[in-house]
Amino acid sequence: MDTIVYKNGVLKILDQTKLPRTVEFYEAKNYLQSIQAIKNMVVRGAPAISMVGAFSYAQAIKEGIDSEVAKKEILKSRPTAVDLSNAIEFMKDATEQMAENKAMEWARKIEKMCKKISELGATLIDDGNSVLTHCNAGPIACGYHGTALGAIIEAWKAGKKIFVYVKETRPRFQGGLTSWELSQYGVPHVIIVDSAFGLLMQRGKIDSVFVGADRIVRNGDVANKIGTHPIAVVAKEYGISFYVLAPSSTLDRLTATGKDIRIEERDEKEILNAIGIDASAYNPAFDITPQSYVTAYITEKGIFRSADELWKSTKE
Amino acid sequence: MDTIVYKNGVLKILDQTKLPRTVEFYEAKNYLQSIQAIKNMVVRGAPAISMVGAFSYAQAIKEGIDSEVAKKEILKSRPTAVDLSNAIEFMKDATEQMAENKAMEWARKIEKMCKKISELGATLIDDGNSVLTHCNAGPIACGYHGTALGAIIEAWKAGKKIFVYVKETRPRFQGGLTSWELSQYGVPHVIIVDSAFGLLMQRGKIDSVFVGADRIVRNGDVANKIGTHPIAVVAKEYGISFYVLAPSSTLDRLTATGKDIRIEERDEKEILNAIGIDASAYNPAFDITPQSYVTAYITEKGIFRSADELWKSTKE
Repeated sequence: MDTIVYKNGVLKILDQTKLPRTVEFYEAKNYLQSIQAIKNMVVRGAPAISMVGAFSYAQAIKEGIDSEVAKKEILKSRPTAVDLSNAIEFMKDATEQMAENKAMEWARKIEKMCKKISELGATLIDDGNSVLTHCNAGPIACGYHGTALGAIIEAWKAGKKIFVYVKETRPRFQGGLTSWELSQYGVPHVIIVDSAFGLLMQRGKIDSVFVGADRIVRNGDVANKIGTHPIAVVAKEYGISFYVLAPSSTLDRLTATGKDIRIEERDEKEILNAIGIDASAYNPAFDITPQSYVTAYITEKGIFRSADELWKSTKE
Repeated sequence: MDTIVYKNGVLKILDQTKLPRTVEFYEAKNYLQSIQAIKNMVVRGAPAISMVGAFSYAQAIKEGIDSEVAKKEILKSRPTAVDLSNAIEFMKDATEQMAENKAMEWARKIEKMCKKISELGATLIDDGNSVLTHCNAGPIACGYHGTALGAIIEAWKAGKKIFVYVKETRPRFQGGLTSWELSQYGVPHVIIVDSAFGLLMQRGKIDSVFVGADRIVRNGDVANKIGTHPIAVVAKEYGISFYVLAPSSTLDRLTATGKDIRIEERDEKEILNAIGIDASAYNPAFDITPQSYVTAYITEKGIFRSADELWKSTKE
């Protein structure tokens, strides 16, 4: 299914807030409606939001919005993923005539990268493996092909008998999206609470961990959905491979270490509504996994065992 | 508030499934209704369920139930916490005449132990500390005084300016109970999702971790609410103290290591209902924290820096 479709100035986006209960498209008729889709997580997943960002910019240019204003508005929609600013960087010289085509070009580029990542990642999964994934880095998060979940689906399509442990991913339960996507392909899996991975690792139930990324900085530190960092620490303790899969659009050459990454803080109601309590909550949406816990980075350019190798691959 | 009250053969139990929305008591008029209260988590928290177990046994004896049948039924209500079997062991020779008094004696004993633990634990919290707690080991889980949360409340009552990070504790959100209890005493706190502790530890926001226990075995491994183990691993990585607080009734001399502990698996609906998805889930209720991650065990007998010291304290 095409999850992000642009036609005649209208951007149709598969509404991830309605999934898995309802398959419904959100229609963004102007650039501000596209930004709203990112803010409200109608679309989520770093590669997918970069596509919507590019199309939103094209809409803005067509609407005659000042390019600096458009850029600022788009970038502040979600601050942690760098893909969005890489998309805007790609779009920056677009004129009214070619902005739409340029956004299309960006989307194709991202899709192609994610396809390659899925194929490379699948080679890291052996027949009979049980893998753990966090949040959702599947087709809907990446515009057709996935990254972390893409690799898992590719391995399954290649005939490997695998099993997937899906973290539910509070507060927004993106594990439900992952479960839904795995079901589309018939991949055997169970959902677990975010707290259960330690027991599974300790009892030898998990062979490897596959996660996506929202930003990978110079020293190799990785920003990804809140809860990624503890998985990496415990995985290392038990000698379990921890793989980060992301397109080059997720690389941030300008930021030195994870300490310098701004972590988005979202509304406390995202946490409190499910508990049904009148209290205070603190709701950071991402955390930082230090590079020392990453077994390998997988981009469209290859499988890299260190941050140095990863950055060398970008120099061609 | 007295949370477990026995009078004229009827056991009144503060209904934790209704909290924090409603303060309501569940009335168990016979021993099977008391067992139901444990199974359905009307009462939870290892010390508190041991009290209800003792009273249930007394009710059974009064009802003329065979003591072996009663014992078996009570023990299978929840398998992981050892406190329940220690309560039954305490009750085993009780005759019809003195069963009720003996159950009262057990309850007083547990309350006294928890009071002492709270006082000892409070000495480990310094003025200005921020502490993390998981699940609920407060007054309602322990029959008036708490253990892990008891220590935190005691520190606050002693005038220390502290701040508490409360993990929501999926799938049953016992963090809501902890937040409610902290509010009763006015202790400043926020709720976080279970995944957020890694970021907080990394950014220097947490000074120490306080958790309860459902079973502590010979080598010092600790069974506690699912999610405890990853906290301990990440805490060690950042040099953060990890404290386990529990009465001696939680000690299991007969089990060698954590591997031998039976982990209760609960209904998948506890997970899936909140996600609103028709899928499969795996719902283990506890995990095992290996002794190497425990900074100290706090029982009513003292603060012990190793499993050896802990077990020596039980020999007097």
